[in-house]
Amino acid sequence: MTDQQLNETFLADWAMHSRFGAVEGTNGVDRQAASAADGEQRKWFAELLESRGFTVRRDAVGNQFGLLELVPGAPYVLTGSHMDSQPTAGRFDGAYGVMASAHACFRIADELRANPEGARFNLAVVNWFNEEGSRFKPSLMGSSVFTGKLALEEALATEDPKGVTVRDALDAIVERGDLAELDVASYAEIHVQQGRSMEEDGVTIGLVNATWAAHKYDFRVLGEQAHSGSTLMADRRDALLGAARLVVAARELVDGFEPEALHTACGELTVYPNSPVVVASEVRLLLDLRSPSAEVIREAHERLMAVIERVEREDRVKIEITAEHSWDQNPYQEEGVALAREVAESLGLTHDRVMTVAGHDSTNMKDLVPTVMLFVPSVDGVSHNLNEFTRDEDLVAGVDQLSGVIRKLAAGALVD
Amino acid sequence: MTDQQLNETFLADWAMHSRFGAVEGTNGVDRQAASAADGEQRKWFAELLESRGFTVRRDAVGNQFGLLELVPGAPYVLTGSHMDSQPTAGRFDGAYGVMASAHACFRIADELRANPEGARFNLAVVNWFNEEGSRFKPSLMGSSVFTGKLALEEALATEDPKGVTVRDALDAIVERGDLAELDVASYAEIHVQQGRSMEEDGVTIGLVNATWAAHKYDFRVLGEQAHSGSTLMADRRDALLGAARLVVAARELVDGFEPEALHTACGELTVYPNSPVVVASEVRLLLDLRSPSAEVIREAHERLMAVIERVEREDRVKIEITAEHSWDQNPYQEEGVALAREVAESLGLTHDRVMTVAGHDSTNMKDLVPTVMLFVPSVDGVSHNLNEFTRDEDLVAGVDQLSGVIRKLAAGALVD
Repeated sequence: MTDQQLNETFLADWAMHSRFGAVEGTNGVDRQAASAADGEQRKWFAELLESRGFTVRRDAVGNQFGLLELVPGAPYVLTGSHMDSQPTAGRFDGAYGVMASAHACFRIADELRANPEGARFNLAVVNWFNEEGSRFKPSLMGSSVFTGKLALEEALATEDPKGVTVRDALDAIVERGDLAELDVASYAEIHVQQGRSMEEDGVTIGLVNATWAAHKYDFRVLGEQAHSGSTLMADRRDALLGAARLVVAARELVDGFEPEALHTACGELTVYPNSPVVVASEVRLLLDLRSPSAEVIREAHERLMAVIERVEREDRVKIEITAEHSWDQNPYQEEGVALAREVAESLGLTHDRVMTVAGHDSTNMKDLVPTVMLFVPSVDGVSHNLNEFTRDEDLVAGVDQLSGVIRKLAAGALVD
Repeated sequence: MTDQQLNETFLADWAMHSRFGAVEGTNGVDRQAASAADGEQRKWFAELLESRGFTVRRDAVGNQFGLLELVPGAPYVLTGSHMDSQPTAGRFDGAYGVMASAHACFRIADELRANPEGARFNLAVVNWFNEEGSRFKPSLMGSSVFTGKLALEEALATEDPKGVTVRDALDAIVERGDLAELDVASYAEIHVQQGRSMEEDGVTIGLVNATWAAHKYDFRVLGEQAHSGSTLMADRRDALLGAARLVVAARELVDGFEPEALHTACGELTVYPNSPVVVASEVRLLLDLRSPSAEVIREAHERLMAVIERVEREDRVKIEITAEHSWDQNPYQEEGVALAREVAESLGLTHDRVMTVAGHDSTNMKDLVPTVMLFVPSVDGVSHNLNEFTRDEDLVAGVDQLSGVIRKLAAGALVD
């Protein structure tokens, strides 16, 4: 096939792919992990892989693999991302990464079939289970189990808000499998940026060199149920008031640092008993701090703890941290960045080093094997939103770039 | 029976009654409208009424009546309250009022059977459907339909958060009936105070003379979904941040007025999509202002609207009022207050005029017929809480007081 034909084939499959879980009247999707739409898409994707000669297998936590053995017994170059989405989200996100990975492997497979002595490793595409963590927590679930960071049984027992376990949800879409292990030599992933710096700087390929530092908290604010009309204001211990003060404080923390030095957010908050005439006795909320600088995170953490002390005292509530985890700036291997730069230059694609704010499955994989992480631009940086958008020319440039990286990895780059 | 025996009989039935929907390991209950526990309790209550010669009927919205016809064709003195509860609430609240009404009617029925010429009206006990409004909104649903303030079909079509309609929920506990109308001459209700002023002032019987003024709002805060990590802070339109600012502002409004001149609350708030890594696009919250003074409510409303303008501008969200209703201080008939005072004095019970902050089914009934509203004390004013408590001596004093009121109403008081 000509380059033009390769691009058209990719874009045709991409258009088909975006129909699974499509939200009517929008350009976006709702395809949460192990939903019916996720199941249908996985079936379609399995057929696509098989039609190109790949063998489809699932492991015990629903990671879906397309395997092509070119060198009997050799380890695999693995590439992929995730097809699950947030509720009502964009169609790009991780799904673009999976489709780009599949098409990059199709190209390299054709080359290696024609020229078998070019292959040192085999090829594998992966669709990681539950990267998003909206239905089942935590996020990055599939790659965390795969890399031994999360116990399989713990993952399978995790319940969604309706009490359905991962085990039962995967069984309902017949996506729990028996692939016990996979010998991986190296890993590559491509994703849309979910920020607007590349678009503003006119950069087509992001060479991801590190993840921002972060501190994430699960808070439980405890008050006391009371009649929300008749109880004297001075007698109240209002958990929702305490929680609201945390949400506001998180936003105000940002103003104490240089512009864009700190991102803070609370996206999830649940109230009990959540009745119009009852002062809430318990509110759970997830709050996070992110920064390129671990020093900023540490300072923001101290200030947040001071706010908590004040809210506990003034609003007579108790604020518990039921879980927290934090990490410093988390680098990718410089050798992978150099490899990706070399490929971009050979293709004549504009490129730059860029950090990722969000976590990706590659954050897990890089701790196991040499890893390359790539970005293509997002228009206006819109993400986790039905209107997320990346231009076709950037999508196909990303497939070219990823193909170049996989060609080198399959020949042994980063491992020798 | 001696007075002692009457009290013991009441307390025995009361103890039995509190077992329906009991929350294990606590003194409280969870008996939301048309729940299984509500259904079981209604069956038990029907048997109790029938065992004392009352005929049990339900109307089309599940109000449960116990009727005793002593004067063929005459109107009824109606007395009652509601047995449904908030989630995990106290066992007193409206349930005490229903049981006190039943036992007061048992006493007056025995007297009138012995002395038939004392009766001008018949006797009816009522257990109003869904006073609380936690599962199905609005509150006061049963009495609102009964008094023509809410259309029956609208009430029956109301859905709970799981999509179950009032119609289906009532059918599930077989409590939708065919009583088409009831000719009511007068109404009496007794309730625990849900405040602590009577306890502090050493008052056993509250002569309720008015309901506080109020303004209630359903707000919808609209933002824009975005990745909560990677989206620039300046690009966000965070609906949860806007909502949190409203919750905090409502509490801070209170400090601009005299102590206890204004009560504000937000007890219910729901977030969409409520995912840890997505900036919320929509938050719905219910917020209310209450005061004995309509002037304070008007001033607080103006200040709240000014806060909303500022939040919309500064946080780039849109805040809509999707529903609101307000009322001035709402008086009960002074003739009813005088009647209740007369009874309390004849019984030697301490008494005082008191306003109610919360709404009661009597708020609906007083617009239809002459009405008497009574309170007994709540220890520490604890309400809508598992630890709600009223002393036995106050419970039985309340039954005595209500019996005295019903004796006079049955003889024609307030109507002649």
